[in-house]
Amino acid sequence: MQHPRTASDDVAQGAAALVARLAARKPRVHCITNAVAQNFTANALLAAGCVPSMTLSPEEIGAFIAQADALLVNLGTFDAERREAARAAVAAATERAVPWVLDPVFIDRSALRTEFARALLLRGPAVVRLNHAEFAALAGAPPTAETARERARRHKTVIALSGEVDIVTDGARTAQIANGHALMGRITAMGCAGSALVAAALAVETDAWLAAAAALAVLGIAGEIAGETAQGPGSFAAAFLDALYRLDAATVAARAKVT
Amino acid sequence: MQHPRTASDDVAQGAAALVARLAARKPRVHCITNAVAQNFTANALLAAGCVPSMTLSPEEIGAFIAQADALLVNLGTFDAERREAARAAVAAATERAVPWVLDPVFIDRSALRTEFARALLLRGPAVVRLNHAEFAALAGAPPTAETARERARRHKTVIALSGEVDIVTDGARTAQIANGHALMGRITAMGCAGSALVAAALAVETDAWLAAAAALAVLGIAGEIAGETAQGPGSFAAAFLDALYRLDAATVAARAKVT
Amino acid sequence: MQHPRTASDDVAQGAAALVARLAARKPRVHCITNAVAQNFTANALLAAGCVPSMTLSPEEIGAFIAQADALLVNLGTFDAERREAARAAVAAATERAVPWVLDPVFIDRSALRTEFARALLLRGPAVVRLNHAEFAALAGAPPTAETARERARRHKTVIALSGEVDIVTDGARTAQIANGHALMGRITAMGCAGSALVAAALAVETDAWLAAAAALAVLGIAGEIAGETAQGPGSFAAAFLDALYRLDAATVAARAKVT
Repeated sequence: MQHPRTASDDVAQGAAALVARLAARKPRVHCITNAVAQNFTANALLAAGCVPSMTLSPEEIGAFIAQADALLVNLGTFDAERREAARAAVAAATERAVPWVLDPVFIDRSALRTEFARALLLRGPAVVRLNHAEFAALAGAPPTAETARERARRHKTVIALSGEVDIVTDGARTAQIANGHALMGRITAMGCAGSALVAAALAVETDAWLAAAAALAVLGIAGEIAGETAQGPGSFAAAFLDALYRLDAATVAARAKVT
Repeated sequence: MQHPRTASDDVAQGAAALVARLAARKPRVHCITNAVAQNFTANALLAAGCVPSMTLSPEEIGAFIAQADALLVNLGTFDAERREAARAAVAAATERAVPWVLDPVFIDRSALRTEFARALLLRGPAVVRLNHAEFAALAGAPPTAETARERARRHKTVIALSGEVDIVTDGARTAQIANGHALMGRITAMGCAGSALVAAALAVETDAWLAAAAALAVLGIAGEIAGETAQGPGSFAAAFLDALYRLDAATVAARAKVT
Repeated sequence: MQHPRTASDDVAQGAAALVARLAARKPRVHCITNAVAQNFTANALLAAGCVPSMTLSPEEIGAFIAQADALLVNLGTFDAERREAARAAVAAATERAVPWVLDPVFIDRSALRTEFARALLLRGPAVVRLNHAEFAALAGAPPTAETARERARRHKTVIALSGEVDIVTDGARTAQIANGHALMGRITAMGCAGSALVAAALAVETDAWLAAAAALAVLGIAGEIAGETAQGPGSFAAAFLDALYRLDAATVAARAKVT
């Protein structure tokens, strides 16, 4: 389905507004995420002006969610503790209308993960962010703009399908975001940090489609800027955080490649 | 209460001595700390010349503490495993007179954490390091130099209250440390690494007040040096570790801002 | 025992071939490793062209190992979860003939760890990588080329004994690798990342002795290159990942110091 509205200007403006709003409002973002990604994710959120928290203890997740502006549930390390934490966090977020993002990492590698992700999908994430292999496993369908739109409509969510070009759709509107850099795939937790940034965007933008598209544009732009000076993935990771910290609205508006 | 003794020279000299002693003695510092902070904390300790260990397994914590020169107990991720690890570690440290630091991270967010931190406070930490919100939660009183002194006396400990200016007091002596850089608040685990450095200082300086104040001066100075070249939080984190590694006694003595 | 074959040329060529093969084949390496090391280990594997995974959940480790080309078992944080994960992973690897590396971190600090490492040693790791203190604890013998050869023969494995000069032996052939840089000891998880690189090498080189020696030469060369520009351990870590990413076969062949 081709939607008559062109998303390009909306998203570019939304991305520009996003960096300013995050810096001004400093939203609290709680992350249930894998141990590999925790440090880089926290640093990306801090660089963008947010206040991250990461506790997994089921007894206190409710208290943290009650004070959070958004939630990320990432399945990257799928142990019993994190499964229980994810369930408790989603229950608390639902009760308090805290928007949340599902990042079903590596569900293509394990049937158990796929099942768990499908159950979470029914709990109403504002956005599902995933790569092509993960989409195929979750949806049981090839990862295309058309299948993404269909699934977004069916589950009343936003699908953010990451790839060379990111596709973000709520079933009606679809944005394609071409920002990014090859080295983003060569450091661990870049995808997880991106999903955390989507969660942060939900805290300052109530249109979940716009929030997701704007966040991924910002992520890609920070990656492009980092790629201009990096010598490899080590210097890239540091330069990415620097770029995210220094981004201003004008730079984002000028660099966004959205169609 | 104004104490007649000026702490400034003592602390500046103590800080200068600290970097030399850590490099020479290479103390072993065991850390019960949150997953987000483990990597950066270990790297900060290594940069300063220490030997970090991080195991949480209750069965072997005793063996690690028996060979450690100091202990850090950080409540940043408050799961059942770490609670048990904290209890076992404090018991072992008490038995062997290994000095330890309590860092009650985020207790302002969760009543359960506050209770746990209060119980640990009764077990005799040499130093309690915390920010203003955490102090208010732990003490049930506003975070001022006066309340910090009162609590230090009541609990026979050293209170290290971090902020724009750090306040370190044992109830009698109070040091105010103005070293630091704004980017220190934009990378995760900087506070945790600071508390680990306080623990390391306890291994080479028996005066806990001097150890804590000296460690925080060293931390702030490394941050200032890093801030001179950093482009943002990513390059800052690397530059901070470089600065900590390269610090010498003369630089520390010249840069310490203690009153 | 002096073996008539000089290993030097074999290993230098093997190391040069290794960087090309990893970049071309992108092997999947599953790591059971400690929380401190997970992020840096994943980044080192990604920099070298590999695809890391890190899950510890016993229920799905089998599915991950089934799709992995090599396995690392690192005992750095020795909690109940990781012990169970290690057992499940080794069982799955044995069943599917996935080669694996044992890295018995810190077994010199705890008798429980030593026992666990000895039990794993009987399960047939392709390579055991450890430092002098860990070798002494595992073998109950001083760490020398001779004792390493004896243990390699007894356990039908390759012993990779890290130190100023690394010794890699299968009992018949012995390589000594002199590449490396002092700052490698000042960042956490460098040893763990090295063992992960050995595991990656097993995925593309069936001669486990050659794989281990080649991987350690590559590790040391990346460290040397990083050391040429680093200002301390922070910039060293980034430069190391950059160097690993940029290494080509000619550079490796020219820089390998193997006898």
